[in-house]
Amino acid sequence: MVDIALIGAGRIGKIHGGNLARQPGMRLKYVCDAVPEAASELAANLGAAVADLDRVFSDAAVQAVAIASSTDTHAGLILRAAAARKAIFCEKPVDLDVGRAREVQAAVAAARVPCLIGFQRRYDPTFAALKRRLDAGEIGEVEVLAITSRDPAPPPIAYIERSGGIFKDQLIHDFDVCRWILGDEAQTVYAASSCLVDQAIAKAGDADTTAVTIRTRKGRLGQINTSRRAAYGYDQRFEVLGSGGMLAAGNHRPTEVSAHRPGGISVDTPEPFFLERYRTAYAEEMIHFAAVLRGEVAPRAAIEDGIRALEIAEAATRSAKEGRAVTL
Amino acid sequence: MVDIALIGAGRIGKIHGGNLARQPGMRLKYVCDAVPEAASELAANLGAAVADLDRVFSDAAVQAVAIASSTDTHAGLILRAAAARKAIFCEKPVDLDVGRAREVQAAVAAARVPCLIGFQRRYDPTFAALKRRLDAGEIGEVEVLAITSRDPAPPPIAYIERSGGIFKDQLIHDFDVCRWILGDEAQTVYAASSCLVDQAIAKAGDADTTAVTIRTRKGRLGQINTSRRAAYGYDQRFEVLGSGGMLAAGNHRPTEVSAHRPGGISVDTPEPFFLERYRTAYAEEMIHFAAVLRGEVAPRAAIEDGIRALEIAEAATRSAKEGRAVTL
Amino acid sequence: MVDIALIGAGRIGKIHGGNLARQPGMRLKYVCDAVPEAASELAANLGAAVADLDRVFSDAAVQAVAIASSTDTHAGLILRAAAARKAIFCEKPVDLDVGRAREVQAAVAAARVPCLIGFQRRYDPTFAALKRRLDAGEIGEVEVLAITSRDPAPPPIAYIERSGGIFKDQLIHDFDVCRWILGDEAQTVYAASSCLVDQAIAKAGDADTTAVTIRTRKGRLGQINTSRRAAYGYDQRFEVLGSGGMLAAGNHRPTEVSAHRPGGISVDTPEPFFLERYRTAYAEEMIHFAAVLRGEVAPRAAIEDGIRALEIAEAATRSAKEGRAVTL
Amino acid sequence: MVDIALIGAGRIGKIHGGNLARQPGMRLKYVCDAVPEAASELAANLGAAVADLDRVFSDAAVQAVAIASSTDTHAGLILRAAAARKAIFCEKPVDLDVGRAREVQAAVAAARVPCLIGFQRRYDPTFAALKRRLDAGEIGEVEVLAITSRDPAPPPIAYIERSGGIFKDQLIHDFDVCRWILGDEAQTVYAASSCLVDQAIAKAGDADTTAVTIRTRKGRLGQINTSRRAAYGYDQRFEVLGSGGMLAAGNHRPTEVSAHRPGGISVDTPEPFFLERYRTAYAEEMIHFAAVLRGEVAPRAAIEDGIRALEIAEAATRSAKEGRAVTL
Repeated sequence: MVDIALIGAGRIGKIHGGNLARQPGMRLKYVCDAVPEAASELAANLGAAVADLDRVFSDAAVQAVAIASSTDTHAGLILRAAAARKAIFCEKPVDLDVGRAREVQAAVAAARVPCLIGFQRRYDPTFAALKRRLDAGEIGEVEVLAITSRDPAPPPIAYIERSGGIFKDQLIHDFDVCRWILGDEAQTVYAASSCLVDQAIAKAGDADTTAVTIRTRKGRLGQINTSRRAAYGYDQRFEVLGSGGMLAAGNHRPTEVSAHRPGGISVDTPEPFFLERYRTAYAEEMIHFAAVLRGEVAPRAAIEDGIRALEIAEAATRSAKEGRAVTL
Repeated sequence: MVDIALIGAGRIGKIHGGNLARQPGMRLKYVCDAVPEAASELAANLGAAVADLDRVFSDAAVQAVAIASSTDTHAGLILRAAAARKAIFCEKPVDLDVGRAREVQAAVAAARVPCLIGFQRRYDPTFAALKRRLDAGEIGEVEVLAITSRDPAPPPIAYIERSGGIFKDQLIHDFDVCRWILGDEAQTVYAASSCLVDQAIAKAGDADTTAVTIRTRKGRLGQINTSRRAAYGYDQRFEVLGSGGMLAAGNHRPTEVSAHRPGGISVDTPEPFFLERYRTAYAEEMIHFAAVLRGEVAPRAAIEDGIRALEIAEAATRSAKEGRAVTL
Repeated sequence: MVDIALIGAGRIGKIHGGNLARQPGMRLKYVCDAVPEAASELAANLGAAVADLDRVFSDAAVQAVAIASSTDTHAGLILRAAAARKAIFCEKPVDLDVGRAREVQAAVAAARVPCLIGFQRRYDPTFAALKRRLDAGEIGEVEVLAITSRDPAPPPIAYIERSGGIFKDQLIHDFDVCRWILGDEAQTVYAASSCLVDQAIAKAGDADTTAVTIRTRKGRLGQINTSRRAAYGYDQRFEVLGSGGMLAAGNHRPTEVSAHRPGGISVDTPEPFFLERYRTAYAEEMIHFAAVLRGEVAPRAAIEDGIRALEIAEAATRSAKEGRAVTL
Repeated sequence: MVDIALIGAGRIGKIHGGNLARQPGMRLKYVCDAVPEAASELAANLGAAVADLDRVFSDAAVQAVAIASSTDTHAGLILRAAAARKAIFCEKPVDLDVGRAREVQAAVAAARVPCLIGFQRRYDPTFAALKRRLDAGEIGEVEVLAITSRDPAPPPIAYIERSGGIFKDQLIHDFDVCRWILGDEAQTVYAASSCLVDQAIAKAGDADTTAVTIRTRKGRLGQINTSRRAAYGYDQRFEVLGSGGMLAAGNHRPTEVSAHRPGGISVDTPEPFFLERYRTAYAEEMIHFAAVLRGEVAPRAAIEDGIRALEIAEAATRSAKEGRAVTL
């Protein structure tokens, strides 16, 4: 039985907390949150105790922490966990600054603790099955990846202002998928962006619509198009062309009802947003974390993956700003 | 907090037990099974105690029982539960004999305890959403229902010999769907059947492939085709034609990967069998049972529904045997 | 170059005329019709001459006739063509009376002229490809066929009154598909029918909605459900279950546009009616007829096929009337 | 009746010739080709006469010419046709050199003859229906276009060497679709390219795989990914995101058969190549040309459209070579 503490009892903390509490062989011992009521409520629901960070990091029985607090706290908490020699799960990103993230990486390496970064898409049943089939050679050598990634609606402007920009905030996941599926590192990045959804986003210095091209060292090509708005729901798809064919990952639908009426034949729009679409992925991620803690597998997404995605995001940000391709 | 006992710790008992144990406001107090080891193991997993039937029915704190034991025990257990004034969930069928089922129904009515019968398809997200849209008038008046219902592979001959025949064993669910969706009672039933999959099934006096037609009192038409074998998995679909269009319920797939290769473009076969396909349905069924216990809703499938489906199954059995339409 | 005459310049005659006129190695010499203007207009469009029946049958240069006139003229025209030793294409049915059709068959056999009956569905690209794959053993032994066959809207009552009833008029094509796909002859037929679309159809002594079950000599099962109305267009599909899987024939859509909007994701409804859906089938049918005339192939649908389908239609009519299964 | 001459009796000339010959109100008078046998054979099949260019341009009865000869002859032939005051249909491109194409445009404008450029995709039933629905406002304001455009297999190296490069040869159609669907002019173009299919293509100085981003004056974003090889057939799709939803254009399939077998559920791969996929588009293009000749409509794709697409192709070529975004 592994004792674990959850840091962060917000929207994503609740997801991870529930999944941790259901994990055989794992016990959710503590819940911490800067907002005491949030910590209390979640702890009560999950049969855990409320604790502050000092208690978490000083309790020798706690073998692992799951960090789901706000982005600006990630680096500091990973460092404390490494120092306390606790295994780490941390939501993406490690930090918005690559240099700082590299420092954190070095500390984790020195502490020799496992550290899993929260790129939950790698655990999505559809994405993960595609990846397995790709690795099994079903379509030969990978050549082109095209990702469509659209949120249902933009977040509040206040969120956007502190987000680090669309490339670090929204596309970071797509950059990770890009590396994971293309199986090669980005060499040049070109990003075009526009503000077509809400001019308040432009005023906040950000874009809401992007088109990114990544060319890898082997010449493989990745294309990503994103928007902060899709009137038909959360759109998360990609297609990989290989020498022997194509594998495509489609959206998940709430039901398989189709309606055949005079105007057309219609099926459900995709799951509305990431909590629904990636519900299974989040659960699988914690099953994987449990296996990491048992020493059975290496983290599917390590701190290095978090940094690489961040580097692409920085390059894309610069590219969109300067109107030129950026070489990594 | 409602205390509940689970009777039956086999394949389906495990499903219901897990769902009951996760139910907010409900406590799984006891697990009973004729096989002590089965009861112990499941009770341990779910944090419940092992008990025999006497203890279950004499413990005044137990307000409800969930019956998931073998078919021949259902009627007796419902009668005991009714006598003990406990609310009841019972897997289908109430009994293989309609007369006996009617006796049980009378006893339950006299005891004034709620009794939910396990027609889990009514809770399947796809089937339930279709039913809601149908009831909302999306395709006008219902005219025709066509059900395709196929198992991936036949059960063992020993199972078939005790099953009561394909109509009572396999099609009972389809007959329930037929009544539920057509919104009208069967008036005539015609069933054609063949043994095309395995001649051992014919030797056991049963068929493995059927085609049933139901005409309701209002003249609505239901068609069901079933097989004990579908090489591509568990096939559970239906289509309803109405005056204004058609609603169709398709299969669920494990993933949304598509593979585009020289021979064709392919997607996953359906979920392999009922435990996978109806996993969510079973969970929803217990959520519904909890609401029934709170007195918020009437059972979505009452004992009367179990009997009606059984009557159609008997009529179909006779029809297939005698080669004629049977009027109910 | 084969000279051919077209008899009947109505809706279906225009289709066949156009296809005959475009046939390499074939010359449409004459067009006949009881309505002189219809004949003149079509002849002018297709570069043919107008002729009466006497001229057609006495012109030794005419090697073949295509009969697309009204149903009640088919038998007489086939007999005249056989007597004149001309090859024959005739629209279904040979006659509404089986006895009369058998007489015609004998005369055609005695004259040793080829006679192709117009079951155009056998030439539909989707249906024909499915049949080829079935014959190639793609799904093993055939077990069950389920046909969905729905018109967009009922014909005028005047048409229904002279149609011979829904089974001879609408389902005749489905009965042919049933024999063609099941690869076996019907042994028992059970038909349930209702009038749910328009009570004027009931007053005319007919039904508009049917559910038919056919059991073949080998015990294969065929199910057909039909309606005179489908609000979403002309619905022409079937599914064949075999020992190794299922082959399904779907509808054709005018375009492959999909619209993703808040209410759902929608694609086109099927081609509106038979002239659109079977446009290619009609063209392929005449290509096949040309090959029959060159002696390269036997008719894909012979007069015997027409009679067999008619016999099933008669049995279905009786079954629906008498409420019992009919043995052929 | 309009007399028309066809110049070029190769693969695409045969398509246009057949469509012209079937056009009501039009008479295909002449067929010209540098290879006399090609001209003779096609002329014989279509009931036209063989002629040389002098005869075509000096015959006052010829009101229009359809140019389907090799690319290097286009500009010269358009100039001769303009000088002879004949209406023009010309396959794309006008010329591989933008300056030369502008000269040709000026001459055509001065001669005041209609000139339709052969961007056949604008007539494809799926693409054209999508465009109509887009113009009707079905998804609001256009924001993003993503095009997938893949040939089944690379052309011979000899062809590639004279093709002008992948952007002018293959993507020219995609650039036209981009302008047509985005409804705005390209401002910046960025193209990444690789040689992943066949190294002989790299030796010939070309690429076989590309990823292009176009940003329009209004900030709309277009992404195109292309390959000279798709193992599953000719892949021609696009998706348009608008403020109110998305419209997507899918591939056409030869049949609507689906096969449900143990390994998956599969449907047909797309139509194999452009002659099959765009068969209807080519026919519709000539119907449109006939309407242009009758003065009923303006050319759906004018010489200006040909030049604009060419300019994007030149920019893309430069971008891929120099690794930077190019502003138009």
